[in-house]
Amino acid sequence: MPTALIEYKDASPEVRAVFDDIMATRKTDWINNFWKALARDPATLKRTWESIKEVMAPGALDPLAKEMVYLAVSVSNQCGYCIASHTAAARNKGMTEPMFAELLAVVGMANETNRLAAGYQVEVDERFKT
Amino acid sequence: MPTALIEYKDASPEVRAVFDDIMATRKTDWINNFWKALARDPATLKRTWESIKEVMAPGALDPLAKEMVYLAVSVSNQCGYCIASHTAAARNKGMTEPMFAELLAVVGMANETNRLAAGYQVEVDERFKT
Amino acid sequence: MPTALIEYKDASPEVRAVFDDIMATRKTDWINNFWKALARDPATLKRTWESIKEVMAPGALDPLAKEMVYLAVSVSNQCGYCIASHTAAARNKGMTEPMFAELLAVVGMANETNRLAAGYQVEVDERFKT
Amino acid sequence: MPTALIEYKDASPEVRAVFDDIMATRKTDWINNFWKALARDPATLKRTWESIKEVMAPGALDPLAKEMVYLAVSVSNQCGYCIASHTAAARNKGMTEPMFAELLAVVGMANETNRLAAGYQVEVDERFKT
Amino acid sequence: MPTALIEYKDASPEVRAVFDDIMATRKTDWINNFWKALARDPATLKRTWESIKEVMAPGALDPLAKEMVYLAVSVSNQCGYCIASHTAAARNKGMTEPMFAELLAVVGMANETNRLAAGYQVEVDERFKT
Amino acid sequence: MPTALIEYKDASPEVRAVFDDIMATRKTDWINNFWKALARDPATLKRTWESIKEVMAPGALDPLAKEMVYLAVSVSNQCGYCIASHTAAARNKGMTEPMFAELLAVVGMANETNRLAAGYQVEVDERFKT
Repeated sequence: MPTALIEYKDASPEVRAVFDDIMATRKTDWINNFWKALARDPATLKRTWESIKEVMAPGALDPLAKEMVYLAVSVSNQCGYCIASHTAAARNKGMTEPMFAELLAVVGMANETNRLAAGYQVEVDERFKT
Repeated sequence: MPTALIEYKDASPEVRAVFDDIMATRKTDWINNFWKALARDPATLKRTWESIKEVMAPGALDPLAKEMVYLAVSVSNQCGYCIASHTAAARNKGMTEPMFAELLAVVGMANETNRLAAGYQVEVDERFKT
Repeated sequence: MPTALIEYKDASPEVRAVFDDIMATRKTDWINNFWKALARDPATLKRTWESIKEVMAPGALDPLAKEMVYLAVSVSNQCGYCIASHTAAARNKGMTEPMFAELLAVVGMANETNRLAAGYQVEVDERFKT
Repeated sequence: MPTALIEYKDASPEVRAVFDDIMATRKTDWINNFWKALARDPATLKRTWESIKEVMAPGALDPLAKEMVYLAVSVSNQCGYCIASHTAAARNKGMTEPMFAELLAVVGMANETNRLAAGYQVEVDERFKT
Repeated sequence: MPTALIEYKDASPEVRAVFDDIMATRKTDWINNFWKALARDPATLKRTWESIKEVMAPGALDPLAKEMVYLAVSVSNQCGYCIASHTAAARNKGMTEPMFAELLAVVGMANETNRLAAGYQVEVDERFKT
Repeated sequence: MPTALIEYKDASPEVRAVFDDIMATRKTDWINNFWKALARDPATLKRTWESIKEVMAPGALDPLAKEMVYLAVSVSNQCGYCIASHTAAARNKGMTEPMFAELLAVVGMANETNRLAAGYQVEVDERFKT
């Protein structure tokens, strides 16, 4: 069965602290199911959130670019929950419909050519090795 | 064995036309092994190149953003040839080392949380369905 | 559409013999849908059950350890049916909630670092080759 | 390191019996590395070979059709060893170069559209459910 | 949320032209959801359909053989929508229940032995390299 | 090309601190290539190591059980580097050859039945939902 979700009002102080930080960082007033499920294992909740927070922070890539990479991987992996949540997140950060359509087109082509390269057993070019 | 590569000098006019378009579009004077292998099947060579050319052209996403999505999928799929060739392509289009490092960090995290979502059988939030 | 399931009462003697062995081996009085679907192809039903029975029997690894490996692979592959059935099976064999949480955490990390190794094109250490 | 291979001359009678059956069934006088590696675990060697023998035997699908499905899956999974060995096997059974090229083209397209279906979260048509 | 589907009556002339060609080529009077979802991005709709049409046309492999390869890849990738739609398509082209059962058995075995080859780190035989 | 490795003698104090902790925790005097490659991105090096250290520490599962789950996922994902390094790590922690063989057999079976469940579109049993 799906993991029972832990709601804020039922959460331990340790879990609430993470939920509070998620809402503050994302400037929202709700927590999506992924975190409520992870809350069953507070150590994983905390470690995963802190890693996500660090990885998705603005850096050499802006947050929208990162969110789109996250979505591209989730689509390629065909993770239903992740596609739903990261499509919403990317839209919140500014992904328009044309950007979404182009993203999916690239993900599709990459999956196709990855297999053509494998099937033809293409050897890496010398230029790519140095 | 790896597919025997077809060099420009040995190519049919049909294949040369594609090779010429690849070099003109990319403003380079060489063809990487992927296309030389595909040249064994001219119909697939032509269709794949024309699809790539259309998908990777500037649009709502710029060419570097598209190339990084392509690379992210290739890393996630662990396709050796594709990682080598698209890392080179992304660098040619302006991907710096910090951008590359952040890209890989996001790909890693997405692969991790995709499995946590699956393992905890997290149900899609109502907000993501509408 | 989902494959029509074959119930015990409607099954051929050949299929019933496998169903009987599944229930006897597992000390239960019911058959889960996976086997009822496979029953449409009695040869595959028999071969698959006998392989599973052999592979999952106590050996150098105990049945719980094997069941957890089975679950870990199913989570990594994001197979919904398999996650549901093998989570139940592992709990029946003694997997506690903390063990489940740690299992998922390891599966998540392995999926992350597998892609970091691929993306950085890390070469195998000499020590690992000998 | 790669698993040490067990050669026929060094094999136990149990392993030799499987090797003999592989060569007789395939009408060849050699054993490829996959089986020599599996020979380290005679139970898995025997079970795997007997399963393969049963699954790949002529039936509703002919051996070449089955071998091409095997190859298609191996290409889609990007398994280097498996692509090399099953390409050779399919050629032995009659796969021509045009057939190989068309096979790879289909594998590529399937991988592309699988991700488009996932990314667009396409719901299954009612007609496909009944 | 699932992508809103574009029905024929609401479609632009550009999209209708593709829908018309799909129905004419397939000799049917309806369009499945995959294409109605892709219609949100007319360029991808057109490119994908034309590629599918070319790849799936009779050639060195007949249409049923191609459809079964498509299905085998979709099963291996565990793409729910694709399994539903390509199972239906393969049946329309003549796949019987015994053929379907054998197809799945081969897909299963290929996925098993792909991992055994990887886990034992089996090296490619010299004979397969030349 | 493979990522240039950063050796201890050339590492920044920040990277050395992580390398020191890896060696102290693992009670070894060397660092494998994975960490030397990650060292190009000190933030990812530190975050990944600290996550691994936390996840792999003794808990409800012992370190060998965790290492075997890690290896099982790496084999299932067919990650060459990861298979090599985690096979070595599991052996160091006590994995015997029979344990390794049984582990691979389970990984193989899980990959097979995951696809049979998908291909037959098996619905989750009511008992597994509650």
